[in-house]
Amino acid sequence: MSETTVTAAILVIGDEILSGRTKDRNIGYIAEHLARIGVDLREVRVVPDDEDEIVAALNALRARYDYLFTTGGIGPTHDDITADAVAEAFGVGIGEDPRVIAMMQERYAPGDFTPARRRMARIPHGADLIDNPVSKAPGFRIGNVMVMAGVPVVMQAMLDNAIKDVKGGAAMLTANVEAGNLPEGRYGDALREIALARPAVSIGSYPSYDDGRFRNQIVVRSKDAAALAEARAAVEAMVGRLKGDAAPL
Amino acid sequence: MSETTVTAAILVIGDEILSGRTKDRNIGYIAEHLARIGVDLREVRVVPDDEDEIVAALNALRARYDYLFTTGGIGPTHDDITADAVAEAFGVGIGEDPRVIAMMQERYAPGDFTPARRRMARIPHGADLIDNPVSKAPGFRIGNVMVMAGVPVVMQAMLDNAIKDVKGGAAMLTANVEAGNLPEGRYGDALREIALARPAVSIGSYPSYDDGRFRNQIVVRSKDAAALAEARAAVEAMVGRLKGDAAPL
Repeated sequence: MSETTVTAAILVIGDEILSGRTKDRNIGYIAEHLARIGVDLREVRVVPDDEDEIVAALNALRARYDYLFTTGGIGPTHDDITADAVAEAFGVGIGEDPRVIAMMQERYAPGDFTPARRRMARIPHGADLIDNPVSKAPGFRIGNVMVMAGVPVVMQAMLDNAIKDVKGGAAMLTANVEAGNLPEGRYGDALREIALARPAVSIGSYPSYDDGRFRNQIVVRSKDAAALAEARAAVEAMVGRLKGDAAPL
Repeated sequence: MSETTVTAAILVIGDEILSGRTKDRNIGYIAEHLARIGVDLREVRVVPDDEDEIVAALNALRARYDYLFTTGGIGPTHDDITADAVAEAFGVGIGEDPRVIAMMQERYAPGDFTPARRRMARIPHGADLIDNPVSKAPGFRIGNVMVMAGVPVVMQAMLDNAIKDVKGGAAMLTANVEAGNLPEGRYGDALREIALARPAVSIGSYPSYDDGRFRNQIVVRSKDAAALAEARAAVEAMVGRLKGDAAPL
């Protein structure tokens, strides 16, 4: 493919996701945003609040993909250790950032600017800040790693700022073909032939189950609009033909 | 700790999660179930429908944790390649399993038992089947790896069967302390002291944001009921004291 491909990973940091207490809502949100700007999300990992685990995952993912987005662990409490782990992964120092201190002194009266809150000003040396319009304490970017909060409303606001400087590749174009109640087992063979003949497109078949019955959708994806349109037509024709043929379920 | 610790990981397989098209609902569900039976979920990965990526993740995770649960990629279409990847990871053959063929011959009339559907009978050699009461085509277990469907209703039914043979360790006990609108920045220092003094408990602080304001909850976790009760009391006393002291937000 002559188009530039830009890749990314997400690292979700937090015991609360692994214990089941908190259901992640950031992965899908970030995934959609990256797709929209032409960045291919290739991998996601979720790790606990453990510095060694976070460092290992940071280093594996930042080396392998163009961008790494992290969520969680940048608040004021003792279990917020992401900034330290990032400094460790990059082999740089960490300390109170005068830009953040100034920002927080504006927000908090002197008596309210507690040591816990000062912790949120600890930023790895050399990082750029990611503005947080919701609750002030910023995220940061160092190298190709964007470090964001875990609370969805804060993460979403940071993401808007974090991706301003991300250069996406050609956007992935997608087309949905509704197969409805036509079973995957009826169209799987024909769809395989269509897919194998078209290496420039990626075709997925996605069943869902609502109200006691399956519903299938076929998604065609490509960065090439003409290839997408041709494949979509082939899939639609195949589905139309099989629906006409199909015996009742 | 004298208690046995049993660990697990989840591997989510599917382009549709990484593209943002489908929002995962399995991670949180499995996480809750594992916590309930005393299994510590330590890591989650999401990878695309790419055999090399799936094999690498399978081998990394099954070597490191006591159990690995996978979701996705076991349907009848060309993008369903999980069973082949599992066989490859374990270095075993794969072929149509006579048990599954028999099961599916009962379900489908001969004309409806398409090659695509026969693909769902391909099971790595030596695997045990995981019953699927929803849509028949089974998952399977090989070694410490449980291979399940991606559609949540099917995955949930398979999980009930998959975990019957899982021996959990001591269950993690948890206590929630509601901090309400008391800001993390006000209690972070006191909570850190409480946490540092109690290595047998794990304490997390979790903000959420609803209707324009933050709400904080502190979660105390331990496998030791007495240690949990003592730590919970310490956290409750601290929160009560600070709420009494607190200036208006």
